[in-house]
Amino acid sequence: MGRRSLAIVALVAILTGIAATPPADEHLAGFSDAAARAERDWEAKFKALPSPDNIREYNRRLSARPHNVGSPYDKDNAEWILSRYKEWGWDAHIETFKVLFPTPKERALELVEPTKFTAKLEEPTVPQDPTSSQHDEQLPTYNAYSADGDVTAPLVYVNFGVPDDYDRLERLGVSVKGAIVIARYGASWRGIKPKVAAEHGAVGCIIYSDPHEDGYFQGDIFPQGAWRPPDGVQRGSVMDMTLYSGDPLTPGVGATEDAKRLPLDQVKVLTKIPTLPISYADARPLLAALGGPMAPNEWRGGLGVTYHLGPGPAKVHLKVKFNWDLKPLYDVIAKIPGSTEPDEWIIRGNHHDAWVNGSEDPISGQTPELEEARALGELVKQGWRPRRTIIYCAWDGEEPGLLGSTEWAETHADELEHHGAVYINSDSNGRGYLGMSGSHTLEKFVNGVARDVEDPETKLTAWKRDQLRRIESAHAQQDRDELRQRADLRIGALGSGSDYTPFLQHLGIASLNLEYGGEDGGGIYHSIYDDFYWYTHFADPTFVYGRALSQTIGTAVMRLADAELLPFDFSDFNETVRGYVNELQKLATSERDDIRERNKEIDEGVFTATADPTKTSVPPKREIEPPHLNFAPLENALDKLAASSDRYQKAWRKAEENGGSALDHASLADLNQTLMDSERKLTTSEGLPRRPWYRHQIYAPGYYTGYGVKTLPAVREPIEEKNWAEADQEIPVVAKVLTDEASLIDSAAAELEKTAGGQ
Amino acid sequence: MGRRSLAIVALVAILTGIAATPPADEHLAGFSDAAARAERDWEAKFKALPSPDNIREYNRRLSARPHNVGSPYDKDNAEWILSRYKEWGWDAHIETFKVLFPTPKERALELVEPTKFTAKLEEPTVPQDPTSSQHDEQLPTYNAYSADGDVTAPLVYVNFGVPDDYDRLERLGVSVKGAIVIARYGASWRGIKPKVAAEHGAVGCIIYSDPHEDGYFQGDIFPQGAWRPPDGVQRGSVMDMTLYSGDPLTPGVGATEDAKRLPLDQVKVLTKIPTLPISYADARPLLAALGGPMAPNEWRGGLGVTYHLGPGPAKVHLKVKFNWDLKPLYDVIAKIPGSTEPDEWIIRGNHHDAWVNGSEDPISGQTPELEEARALGELVKQGWRPRRTIIYCAWDGEEPGLLGSTEWAETHADELEHHGAVYINSDSNGRGYLGMSGSHTLEKFVNGVARDVEDPETKLTAWKRDQLRRIESAHAQQDRDELRQRADLRIGALGSGSDYTPFLQHLGIASLNLEYGGEDGGGIYHSIYDDFYWYTHFADPTFVYGRALSQTIGTAVMRLADAELLPFDFSDFNETVRGYVNELQKLATSERDDIRERNKEIDEGVFTATADPTKTSVPPKREIEPPHLNFAPLENALDKLAASSDRYQKAWRKAEENGGSALDHASLADLNQTLMDSERKLTTSEGLPRRPWYRHQIYAPGYYTGYGVKTLPAVREPIEEKNWAEADQEIPVVAKVLTDEASLIDSAAAELEKTAGGQ
Repeated sequence: MGRRSLAIVALVAILTGIAATPPADEHLAGFSDAAARAERDWEAKFKALPSPDNIREYNRRLSARPHNVGSPYDKDNAEWILSRYKEWGWDAHIETFKVLFPTPKERALELVEPTKFTAKLEEPTVPQDPTSSQHDEQLPTYNAYSADGDVTAPLVYVNFGVPDDYDRLERLGVSVKGAIVIARYGASWRGIKPKVAAEHGAVGCIIYSDPHEDGYFQGDIFPQGAWRPPDGVQRGSVMDMTLYSGDPLTPGVGATEDAKRLPLDQVKVLTKIPTLPISYADARPLLAALGGPMAPNEWRGGLGVTYHLGPGPAKVHLKVKFNWDLKPLYDVIAKIPGSTEPDEWIIRGNHHDAWVNGSEDPISGQTPELEEARALGELVKQGWRPRRTIIYCAWDGEEPGLLGSTEWAETHADELEHHGAVYINSDSNGRGYLGMSGSHTLEKFVNGVARDVEDPETKLTAWKRDQLRRIESAHAQQDRDELRQRADLRIGALGSGSDYTPFLQHLGIASLNLEYGGEDGGGIYHSIYDDFYWYTHFADPTFVYGRALSQTIGTAVMRLADAELLPFDFSDFNETVRGYVNELQKLATSERDDIRERNKEIDEGVFTATADPTKTSVPPKREIEPPHLNFAPLENALDKLAASSDRYQKAWRKAEENGGSALDHASLADLNQTLMDSERKLTTSEGLPRRPWYRHQIYAPGYYTGYGVKTLPAVREPIEEKNWAEADQEIPVVAKVLTDEASLIDSAAAELEKTAGGQ
Repeated sequence: MGRRSLAIVALVAILTGIAATPPADEHLAGFSDAAARAERDWEAKFKALPSPDNIREYNRRLSARPHNVGSPYDKDNAEWILSRYKEWGWDAHIETFKVLFPTPKERALELVEPTKFTAKLEEPTVPQDPTSSQHDEQLPTYNAYSADGDVTAPLVYVNFGVPDDYDRLERLGVSVKGAIVIARYGASWRGIKPKVAAEHGAVGCIIYSDPHEDGYFQGDIFPQGAWRPPDGVQRGSVMDMTLYSGDPLTPGVGATEDAKRLPLDQVKVLTKIPTLPISYADARPLLAALGGPMAPNEWRGGLGVTYHLGPGPAKVHLKVKFNWDLKPLYDVIAKIPGSTEPDEWIIRGNHHDAWVNGSEDPISGQTPELEEARALGELVKQGWRPRRTIIYCAWDGEEPGLLGSTEWAETHADELEHHGAVYINSDSNGRGYLGMSGSHTLEKFVNGVARDVEDPETKLTAWKRDQLRRIESAHAQQDRDELRQRADLRIGALGSGSDYTPFLQHLGIASLNLEYGGEDGGGIYHSIYDDFYWYTHFADPTFVYGRALSQTIGTAVMRLADAELLPFDFSDFNETVRGYVNELQKLATSERDDIRERNKEIDEGVFTATADPTKTSVPPKREIEPPHLNFAPLENALDKLAASSDRYQKAWRKAEENGGSALDHASLADLNQTLMDSERKLTTSEGLPRRPWYRHQIYAPGYYTGYGVKTLPAVREPIEEKNWAEADQEIPVVAKVLTDEASLIDSAAAELEKTAGGQ
């Protein structure tokens, strides 16, 4: 047989992998039968390699000292990671950037009226926890990218500090204008809280961990249990990452030594008001000193005080000043070159920087990645040759704002746009269930991986255990029916909060985020107690879930790197996007119904009739009834998308049924390139309204939720914000993106049809 | 015109009151136009009479000292009330009974392991509250009708201590066998807690007020605010009133001097295990000392500790001993005799005994009743003559178990069965909204009353304010639509917890319970702080809602006493019962679906797959799939009920259209008697399964909820308890009751049809 007919045979065989003739457990989408068998052999060898003990020792080493951005141990860790990659046979180097990373110069918080109290702002040593005493190297408790400030003002409690909370405050007659707000952690990413507070006229923002969400209400506190002790503080970035991630001074370009940098006063992602995170021991006297109306029932936390809103009589003094320095980043980048498709890159990353010791965040994710790398290196030694290039990354500077990943992605944007096939991320890991999120074109693929890895506790597959958990926690019979009948478990959509953001939402590279968890306790997040002692007592003490993560992501990486045809699937994607559009239509309808109903109630006098005269209450304002939006462009686009994804699947089947016309190696490469571009096609060069850096039109972090995803954000957010004109304007834009995606899928289908008789 | 034709005219005119020809605001159901005009004049005069200042002074007097059953001031109050009735021209007397009323001899509660703590069991004086210092006269904190006991055992936290909580404990691997349980107040009547605990093998029961439901979580604590202070304790009865109310020694008969009494060891309504209520200050060290599994999320309260379940290491010693004495009861009974229908009684009651000073419970309800009595006495002086007899009652011994009302009702059962038309109850009163509950044959009537009284704060009618509040708090558009379109606001069904129980559920007298509330804070219930100081600071300081209650109930009493035809309506009743039957069918279906689904999940391995190996968890047991129940008898009965209530309404209309045949005075009296019997027809002489004292087949206090109502209890409770055979057996019983009711309504309709041409 000549090369041509071989290629036909190969492709038909690959397709067979999906169209089900050989035993089910040997099929692999995108592989010919022979290749699938070989792949399964290599994967089996791979899965035997990761060792919980290795993962434990990596964790001990990497979390032994505080290793925040700019610290000596951060660099030391990067160099140690680099040495490991080299030792395991990878082509590895460190890539450095220079980024703005403020650290505290002054921090003060006092209650000045009606009584005096000075906040401690310190996390004490816990005797049995050896690294908790490394105070000289620990970053103080603070929010990075808070503005400098020195303010004294009445205090107001704003619950989670999200926009709905301020609507509620308005109804209760409470204004935050000129006030310092105190918000509890939760319900949104922390950076949203000072942003929304400033939009409402507040002059300062305190964020605290309420024991109801993050303390003794949840469980025994550290060191007796996993949960946050009274003086534990959640550090964290408050940079407005909903505008862009990465170095605040170099949006959209790599923060290389000689990059052009914005002057500080032009940077839009810093907070407008001074912001400081505190412990619940420090928060209690402040909240207890508040008068004014009672906080609404669901705003009340676990402090054991009566929650009032203020303003006053509590008045507080808040002062924060920072060193606005540039600091170096050390990204470790390691490669195994592809044998036949070196220009198609499978990228895998987890950050290595932490706020303090970070045994959980990020080391519990970083160490399984290392163990994958060791095992893949071992396979290469045994003769394994991935078709595609594999790139393993250990990011620096994730904590302040996805700095290391973003700067690397921006620096290498051109190459990534040509070569980036898939990015797989993790951030931390624990005991429990496999969490799967990412691009829905990979939903079928990642379900296949989850079916092939074993849960350490139950010996079920990770997929099965997750399915059964979802059945248990489903509320509606309809959801349980779907869980039993649908081939794939639905995967979550990605918002932000970890290093996939620059790849997925800025560059349009199909991405996944995979981590285990759900049975481990929280409570030490971004505190000095997130360390080896805590992790080995309360998270994954035997590191068997570390091994499970290595096995899961390693298998995914191998399968993606080895597949002859990239296993992108458009049927789940199409179904998912249709679901999003349905949600938008329901949302628009319910917003219209709600406004209509509220206006009616205003007319009926509901709010004056139900106002308790002994309390302040402000009736809601009449709102204009929203117009009906024209969803037709989206519906037309969805029909095209459905037709094209059907055509792609049919072509796949037909190609199996008859030999059809040939598809040579070049055509296969073309088809893979088309598939890689399918995620790029979901972006626009203009990006989202008000935030052009975010180019993806299906997934974005919410402008007012932060980490929380907004799907079809260009349409969803204006509807949520009652900006009907913008929603109407963006619908055709998103519709065009989906129509273009349908055309791309059509052209991929046409390539496939050549093998099926050329129609 | 002769007497006969007058009667015809009168009845036709009465009917017109409903069928709408004269101006809407002059109509009164059951009144001829002329009588309605006279009635409205008298009601207007009446409504001008009640004075907030009088109500305040009655309250100050009656709550000046502790006045529990058996105390000197209890008798003193009864005599003072008697004098007032006499002074206002009523025919009044005191009726005495002798009842079992245990008081504490010894009370002790200690934590004996792992540390020592002795519960205080005392409520301290609050300096600014003058009556809080009357310690010599205050009943200690205890639960009346707890068994004597002296036990030392490991402690287990059981949440609210209702049956579902024990199911949950079983899943968590926690047994209460041989343990002392600690339950928080809420979710059920308190007497359910020791009952269910004993059923599960516990040897003692502690009940505490968690600050989440009843303390600082809800608002500022007394004396700064209305809410329960740390040492405040909720006293209360734990007699099993779900079996019968009244004196435990004389079930079903009056506890007169020479009544036959059960020996104590044959009394079924005492608890099986020693029981003691405590404050949250006393509860905190006990709960903080518990180990074992974490309490489920929704079980955790507001104590600011980590809620564990136990058992152990906390071990407690509980000792309670009581004086098992007989005590006298003083019911004040006062009459205005009816002018034309003296044998049809409109009864109105509120108790006068309290646990301590009881300014809210019961004096805030007792004092508006007194002011009604003063005003009605005044009207009589001005010439008003009610057609029916009015009986006003001030009950003693409500707190221990509806003793005074039950013994009176049992003593006068024969007369009441012949003469009892309607019983109207209140128990306490506060600022806010009119709460309306009772027999649904009176739903239309009480809606009419609520439309004719003014809310003091908004000057809307009480009906309008309540409608608007319900619209505001409704969740579904469908509910709001109904609230806007339905003629009547739905009234609640009565369970138990106040003095309507013997009238409604034992004797079958149509009943109403009417009180204002919803804007006043709680937190002093059954403590020494329920006093004049608290009430005048936090409940209804100006007593305008006391006046509103006088106006509301006084109007209802007058309208019922003056109506020519009793304003019973069967259309709302029919619709309501149909709703209950729908609920039962849904309940049976959802129980079957739940069991089927759970069995499937057991087969799938859901519970083993989702068990965290570091925690105990016991998978649920397979259950037999429930059979389909035969609801046909109930559906057939409902069809008959619908037909008869339609016929009654049509007859009413027809009687208006043409003169028809005559209905003389005797026939009118017959018709009224038939209408009075309509509630009696809803009872059976056998009563409910397992509790024959409860005879009503539509409404009963839940066997496992206590105060909370169970409608169609003979069918609903077996379904809830998965006793399918009993449910199937009781359906025809209840169906027969409804069919008999339909026949009664048919015969009432037939009487009416005589006026409409005799068909």
